[in-house]
Amino acid sequence: MHPQRDHGGDAERAAMRAALHAAARGPRGANPLVGAVLVDASGRILHEGHHRGAGTPHAEVDVLQRAAAAGTDLRGTTMYVSLEPCDHWGRTGPCSRAIVAAGVPRVVYGAPDRTTAAAGGARTMRAAGVEVRPGPLADEAEALNDRWAETMRAQRPFVTLKVAQSLDARIAAADGTSQWITSSSAREHGHDLRALADAVLVGTGTVLADDPRLTARTGEGAVPARQPLRVAMGLRPVPERARVRGDDGLFRQVLTHDPHAALAELYDAGVRHVLVEGGAGVAAAFLRADLVDELALYQAPLLLGAGRPAFEDLGVGTLADASRWRLDPAGGGPVRRLGPDLWLHLRPAPAC
Amino acid sequence: MHPQRDHGGDAERAAMRAALHAAARGPRGANPLVGAVLVDASGRILHEGHHRGAGTPHAEVDVLQRAAAAGTDLRGTTMYVSLEPCDHWGRTGPCSRAIVAAGVPRVVYGAPDRTTAAAGGARTMRAAGVEVRPGPLADEAEALNDRWAETMRAQRPFVTLKVAQSLDARIAAADGTSQWITSSSAREHGHDLRALADAVLVGTGTVLADDPRLTARTGEGAVPARQPLRVAMGLRPVPERARVRGDDGLFRQVLTHDPHAALAELYDAGVRHVLVEGGAGVAAAFLRADLVDELALYQAPLLLGAGRPAFEDLGVGTLADASRWRLDPAGGGPVRRLGPDLWLHLRPAPAC
Repeated sequence: MHPQRDHGGDAERAAMRAALHAAARGPRGANPLVGAVLVDASGRILHEGHHRGAGTPHAEVDVLQRAAAAGTDLRGTTMYVSLEPCDHWGRTGPCSRAIVAAGVPRVVYGAPDRTTAAAGGARTMRAAGVEVRPGPLADEAEALNDRWAETMRAQRPFVTLKVAQSLDARIAAADGTSQWITSSSAREHGHDLRALADAVLVGTGTVLADDPRLTARTGEGAVPARQPLRVAMGLRPVPERARVRGDDGLFRQVLTHDPHAALAELYDAGVRHVLVEGGAGVAAAFLRADLVDELALYQAPLLLGAGRPAFEDLGVGTLADASRWRLDPAGGGPVRRLGPDLWLHLRPAPAC
Repeated sequence: MHPQRDHGGDAERAAMRAALHAAARGPRGANPLVGAVLVDASGRILHEGHHRGAGTPHAEVDVLQRAAAAGTDLRGTTMYVSLEPCDHWGRTGPCSRAIVAAGVPRVVYGAPDRTTAAAGGARTMRAAGVEVRPGPLADEAEALNDRWAETMRAQRPFVTLKVAQSLDARIAAADGTSQWITSSSAREHGHDLRALADAVLVGTGTVLADDPRLTARTGEGAVPARQPLRVAMGLRPVPERARVRGDDGLFRQVLTHDPHAALAELYDAGVRHVLVEGGAGVAAAFLRADLVDELALYQAPLLLGAGRPAFEDLGVGTLADASRWRLDPAGGGPVRRLGPDLWLHLRPAPAC
């Protein structure tokens, strides 16, 4: 019996589709979205795995762990993975060697790994006797992470812009009150975003106006050990007693109004994923520079009619020049209800 | 065998719950949301029906028609209906008599009918030998239509406010361009809303600025026979050649800036459901007066950063006084994707 022939094109596509679906369950950020499935000789999916963000097991290791936990015999299986398995010793060890060690005889991948550091996984596995080849849906697999790939090429951090606004896009009422526009459910979700990022960035204006802590906290107010760098961007001095400074050494001011310069400085400091939280001027600066890779928009079901707008001038004079986005089914889903609020998750739309 | 005892409390609640779910599928507007189910002696649900808006069969008739089409024997059945069956000769004939004629032996209803015109259905059915009684979930059944009941008491039309905006709540770019912020899918959905309403209302400012037709049209541009009244609200003269005038006699100007006065005039003219489409000043006037019963918010995934805001001053000075809403699962669902856009469907939140 020749399993590959038995799979056929439809079964191959179904398996790769399942890997892509699994990939989409991960969070966007410093790492690409990757999913992997193990199928048996008849094409049946045995296990699925996906990457859950920086510092966690890659999709290939995730699915191998599930197979090991279930005692699955890997002889005769094929692994479908949305991205060519990596070959480098990052935080988690090379997937190529994990696959070889596990004894998976065949690997079909979606998008090739184009990064210098991680490429070469296919070669390593082939040298160890694994049958490795590119498979179907390569375009979809590449599109899943195109914006991430762009940040890698540009050697800058991946940027998520987080905004919490009313239905009429206000972030504060006429008298400046803003705590809280969104519900505790939405704010907890926002803290989860912080916990995934390497850095959380606000303008110095926001530091002076709101005195935020910018730490990632749990619903019970606890402060997990892994915390993002807290960044104030701008030229105004940050007061000695500003809460953002904390006492853990995880505060930094970037003395610029230029988002390119800010990201370059943060990249050099090892930051690969920045969560930009505002205010409106900082958000607009990143948007104007096309440096926002992901938009996380919390909408509370209320109207203010006046007050501070969430977005300042974007340099858009006419509708044809609007900043265009699309709902992103990957990286957390396109729309989610959080208590009374909505979470909209968007990515830049391709230019028309 | 005594079917009612066999049902028990849980089965009763499950049947009424099913009737409420069916009710929620209808559109909000000039009529209450009503659902009905027929269950057999064992409590099994045989058929479901719901009301689909003014001029269409009531839920009770809808479910009876389904039973008739399926040839269901109605002996031993019970009808659960979310609202006491009506007893009046409106556009569709009294449900009480349809139920009697069909031979349904038992009726359990949720909310009592408190309207003068339609009440009395229970009495009529009892006189004809039907066993009729109030059932479980009466509070939920009443809450489903509380805002509609309020309009009935106040003798004013039910008001839906429709807004099509960008993510940053703009309805036009800086240079005034606004065609089209939302996609064709969203605009078609908007025409469906028009087709359900008795009247579509805009301010005279919008008439002068955009020269809208305000007709309900299909995706192919056809104009269905049943058209809403087209209403311009305000004091500025509507030009003779304004498209809103049309040539079918279905245009009316209400010479006032007061939404109460406008609604009173329209109610006297027989209008029971008004779709308010803007502009921002008219929308704000209805919101300030707490005369919006339903908010239909189309959101296109784009940012403008400047341009005309969708909502003007609502008299809200501080966050605690915000105009509060909640996503409405009934009347079309809380959130829907329409092509690239989102439709948010909200109802006023109870005051805190």
